[in-house]
Amino acid sequence: MKIAIAGAGAMGCRFGYMLTKTGQEVTLIDEWPAHIEAIQKNGLKVVDGENTDTIDIKIIRPEEATEEVDVVIAFTKSMKLGEMLEKIKAIIHEDTKVLCLLNGLGHEDTMAKYVPRKNIIMGVTIWTAGIIEPGVARLGGTGTVEMQAADPSGVAIAKELVEVMDKAGLNASYSEDVHFSTWRKACVNGTMNATCAILDANIGEVFDTSTAEAIVMQIIAEFVAVAEKEGVHLDPAAMKDYVYTASNKVRGHYPSMHQDLIQNHRFTEVDFLNGFVARKGKEYGIPTPYCQLITELIHAKEDILKVK
Amino acid sequence: MKIAIAGAGAMGCRFGYMLTKTGQEVTLIDEWPAHIEAIQKNGLKVVDGENTDTIDIKIIRPEEATEEVDVVIAFTKSMKLGEMLEKIKAIIHEDTKVLCLLNGLGHEDTMAKYVPRKNIIMGVTIWTAGIIEPGVARLGGTGTVEMQAADPSGVAIAKELVEVMDKAGLNASYSEDVHFSTWRKACVNGTMNATCAILDANIGEVFDTSTAEAIVMQIIAEFVAVAEKEGVHLDPAAMKDYVYTASNKVRGHYPSMHQDLIQNHRFTEVDFLNGFVARKGKEYGIPTPYCQLITELIHAKEDILKVK
Repeated sequence: MKIAIAGAGAMGCRFGYMLTKTGQEVTLIDEWPAHIEAIQKNGLKVVDGENTDTIDIKIIRPEEATEEVDVVIAFTKSMKLGEMLEKIKAIIHEDTKVLCLLNGLGHEDTMAKYVPRKNIIMGVTIWTAGIIEPGVARLGGTGTVEMQAADPSGVAIAKELVEVMDKAGLNASYSEDVHFSTWRKACVNGTMNATCAILDANIGEVFDTSTAEAIVMQIIAEFVAVAEKEGVHLDPAAMKDYVYTASNKVRGHYPSMHQDLIQNHRFTEVDFLNGFVARKGKEYGIPTPYCQLITELIHAKEDILKVK
Repeated sequence: MKIAIAGAGAMGCRFGYMLTKTGQEVTLIDEWPAHIEAIQKNGLKVVDGENTDTIDIKIIRPEEATEEVDVVIAFTKSMKLGEMLEKIKAIIHEDTKVLCLLNGLGHEDTMAKYVPRKNIIMGVTIWTAGIIEPGVARLGGTGTVEMQAADPSGVAIAKELVEVMDKAGLNASYSEDVHFSTWRKACVNGTMNATCAILDANIGEVFDTSTAEAIVMQIIAEFVAVAEKEGVHLDPAAMKDYVYTASNKVRGHYPSMHQDLIQNHRFTEVDFLNGFVARKGKEYGIPTPYCQLITELIHAKEDILKVK
C-alpha cells in the first residue's frame, strides 16, 4: 500500500516505522527542517527500551508531495490539520482515503472541507510515542487503533487498511462506533491535559489533590452532556472508572499539553478538547463552565508565555 | 487609647506604627518568633521610599496578652481570625471593641462567635504594606479606612476610633454601608488574586491576555449575584470600571495570594474570596462555577506545593 503520513511527529514516526518494517511504501510529510534533514541524512532512528533500530524512510515537505497515494494518515497537531490537507492536495486523488488519527474533537468537519465524505476514515489510537531529538523517536508501551469509514462505501477499503496496520503490529480493528472511542479518549484528555498544564504538575500529582475528583467529575459531566447531543452516549460512572484507571497507569506522565505549553511554550490543542465542548455547549444551550474557564485559562497562559 | 493589634504582619505594623507615632498606646500581638524577637530587640523599623524610621513598640505572643484594652484591631490572615480571638480573650473585656480589618468575606460570622455584637466594628481598608524582613515593614502609597459598628450602640465609640485613626493619618471615615465597600474590595481581589496565582503572573500580564475580560466579567457576575442575596447591591458595569481602574494602578504587582502560594508555599485566603462566593452561591442556589473551579484549582495547587 502507498501510504503518506501527514505529520511526522512522534506518532507519525511510530506508525511510519512499523508500517515500513512490514513492507508498506511509506512517505513521511513534515515541516520541521531539522527533523527532515536528520531523517534524510541518517534515516529514522527508533529507541524502544534497550533496543534501537534505524530505517531508511522517505521524508518530504508538504510542497514536495506530488505523487498520488492510496492512503493518507493525518497525524498533525489539531490546529494544523486543515493547512496540511490544503498543502498536500496534489497527492489526494479521487480514490485516496484519508484516515484521521488526531487527538481531540471536531476534526471530521475539517476533513470534510478537503476530502469527499466517501474517502474519509475517522480513527482513534491510544499508542504513545515521543521525539527524543530530530530524527529520533521513542517507542515503548503498547496500544490499539480503531477506525471507521465515514461513509458505507468506504468500509471495504477501511477494512483493508485495518489488515495492513494489524500486520504491522498496531493492534488495529474496524469499529462500528469510532465516535464513542474518540469522545471517550477526548474526555480522558479533557480531565488531565489542561489541568496538568494549568497546575504545572504531572497526572499523579493532580489526581492526588483534595479537589481533583470535584474538578474531574464536573469536566466529565460536561463532556457527557455535549456528547449526548452529538449522538454519543457516555456513561458518567463508567467514564469516571475509565479516567481513574487511565490516570493510575501514567501517574508520572506530563501530558502533551504540559509539554507544549509549559515545557516548550507552544500553542496547545485545548480548543479541540475542553474548548470544543465549551463551544458546542454554547450552541446546544448546555452549561459547560468548567470547560469554558479551563480553555480561557490555557489561552491566558499561552498569551502570558508568548507562545508561538 | 489602649489598642491591641492582633496580627502584626505588614498591615498590622503599618497601623501600629502610625497610631504609636500619634500618641496611642499600641501593643502588637503576633506568633512569628523571628519577627517578635527582632522588634523586641531593635524596635519596629519602617521603610517608606528613601525614608526610614524606627520606633519602640510592645510586641507579645497571644498567650502573653492579659491586659485589658479599649480596642482590638484584628489584622490576622483570614483563616487565623477565630484562633486568634480565642487566644486573646483575656484582653477582650465587656466593653472592648473589636475592629475587623481583614481582607475577604464572612468574617462577621467568625467575630460573632467570640465578641458580643455590640462590640463588633466591621471595617475595610485599602492601605497596603509589605514585610521586608522580620522587624522591618515597607510602607509607601496611600489609602483609606472605613468602618461601621455592627450594632447602633457601638456607633459613638466607632466614631471615636475613626477620629483617632484619622489623626494618625490613616484617612479614616465612618461608613453607613461598610458591607458595600467590603464586597467591592473582595470582588476586586476575587478577579485578581487567584487568577494571578493560578497563572503565575502579575496583574498587568493577566489583564492583558485575550481571555482576561471573559474571566473577570464572569467572576464579577457571580460576586454581584451572591452579594445581592446578602443585601449588598453591586452594579456589574460600575464594578467592571472599578476593577479595571484598580488593575491599571498596580499592573506590576503580584497579589498577596501569589506571594502566599507561589512565592512562599503558604495557605491562601481563597476560601474567604472566591471560595466564600461559591459556598454562598450553593446555599442560595445561584450558579457560581468560575468561583468554584478557581477555588478548587487554588486548593489543588496548595496540595501540589505541600503548603503549610
